[in-house]
Amino acid sequence: MLIAYQGVPGAYSEAAALRLKPGVDTLPRDSFDDVFAAVAERKATHGILPIENTIGGTIHRNYDLLLEHELPIVAEVKLAIVHNLLVLEGTTLDQVDRVYSHPQGLAQCERFLRSLKDVEIVATYDTAGSAKMIKESDLTNAAAIASERAAQVFGLEILQAGIQDFANNVTRFLIISGEAVPLGPPDKTTIVFTLANEPGALFKALSVFALRGIDLTKLESRPIPDRPFEYLFYVDLKANREEFRCARALMHLAEFAPLLRTLGSYPAWKEPDEQGSKAGG
Amino acid sequence: MLIAYQGVPGAYSEAAALRLKPGVDTLPRDSFDDVFAAVAERKATHGILPIENTIGGTIHRNYDLLLEHELPIVAEVKLAIVHNLLVLEGTTLDQVDRVYSHPQGLAQCERFLRSLKDVEIVATYDTAGSAKMIKESDLTNAAAIASERAAQVFGLEILQAGIQDFANNVTRFLIISGEAVPLGPPDKTTIVFTLANEPGALFKALSVFALRGIDLTKLESRPIPDRPFEYLFYVDLKANREEFRCARALMHLAEFAPLLRTLGSYPAWKEPDEQGSKAGG
Repeated sequence: MLIAYQGVPGAYSEAAALRLKPGVDTLPRDSFDDVFAAVAERKATHGILPIENTIGGTIHRNYDLLLEHELPIVAEVKLAIVHNLLVLEGTTLDQVDRVYSHPQGLAQCERFLRSLKDVEIVATYDTAGSAKMIKESDLTNAAAIASERAAQVFGLEILQAGIQDFANNVTRFLIISGEAVPLGPPDKTTIVFTLANEPGALFKALSVFALRGIDLTKLESRPIPDRPFEYLFYVDLKANREEFRCARALMHLAEFAPLLRTLGSYPAWKEPDEQGSKAGG
Repeated sequence: MLIAYQGVPGAYSEAAALRLKPGVDTLPRDSFDDVFAAVAERKATHGILPIENTIGGTIHRNYDLLLEHELPIVAEVKLAIVHNLLVLEGTTLDQVDRVYSHPQGLAQCERFLRSLKDVEIVATYDTAGSAKMIKESDLTNAAAIASERAAQVFGLEILQAGIQDFANNVTRFLIISGEAVPLGPPDKTTIVFTLANEPGALFKALSVFALRGIDLTKLESRPIPDRPFEYLFYVDLKANREEFRCARALMHLAEFAPLLRTLGSYPAWKEPDEQGSKAGG
């Protein structure tokens, strides 16, 4: 197993891959597109992608890429995002006159950054890449906003921990693969569909699940650019698509949805303590 | 009428306010919180806030602030986001060794920025603030990513136009006010509600609208942090809340939704050419 991710070692995506499978081999890539390419070209067996964050919302770009490619979702993992201010050992806050991080990391720590005086804020392509640069260029007057793992990977000191503006900053990642082999017994299914813009269309669509007792864990509408009378819907179902009622519900939906794609059936993420108590019971 | 917005003159939020009411007076503020405060303290009659973007998705923070405050939505406006590379007159691309913008602007132009060689990317609190700084500090080796309006406001040259990674980058803004006086005949209503995590709960909730012939234009679920068995739903209805069927539907929903808040009833945005044809007809 080799999991491609966007970023460099110490990135949140890499941390998420390691949370899924401790000690797994990982393959850094420059962009989300490159992660898909690595899996499509079989350079990696799997890819990991952030899909939604409790603060920032859904990452539409990755839904678009899931629709463009035929690489099924085989697992999911959730990771609490804790941003830290990392420096070379011995650097004090007074000495810091530049802070480096990915634009998203900077945006999520805006309040903290505004509290610093006379500091220049520099955007980079990776949170962990910033940490790497500070180490490699031996920058004694700079800090990076990155994960605890980035501090470990690059031997930096955590000057201040948990500097993000909001607690409960959790990102959900999807794991894609070239083979539709779920990483455990599937009990969750992600679908994307469009509906004609007719009154009651969504209600009718949801009825195919509700009247069969299938519950939803995510539902989001998105207007389709250039097609003002159609909407795209992202839905997560609490069911395995192979289950009879789920298979029938999807056939039913396909009768009237202009587009319907099942992006994958996979095991819903369970926190390690839930998994432990399960194993123990 | 005085509309508070986040940013400085030339910001996309200011452009959206001017799109709503050409020539309207505007009041710049540092943060979204400060926009709400300005309206709550009657320093401005209205406030304007980005609520969702076709690329970036929903801005949950502003939904949270709408729930915290009792400032009704009285209008909406949509604005195409076109990012440009702005420089002092005469600066060439070769001379640019620093690019300034807001983290979101930088993230939306990542492909373009990666194509530049040996350029440092610096994050600021505003797209327009970056343009202002280049002008005021007379930076001949720097560029800002900002709106066309920012170029006009600060007398900068557009070195390259439309540098965002994706076309169809449209932001929807909401206008809030201290008084529940919609800026036109209301035909759209935004509500937020929670539901117990029971099978079919959402289907039941949508039935109160569907069975009364009320259509939805947005629907999004969001897990509530720290309350794993409850979800928050954002819904836009194609109806005025004063309409009998809508008022009854909301009463019906309140019977079983633990929380239900109507954030406002207001006129759905019509593009100027639609408005023109309406006025002409």
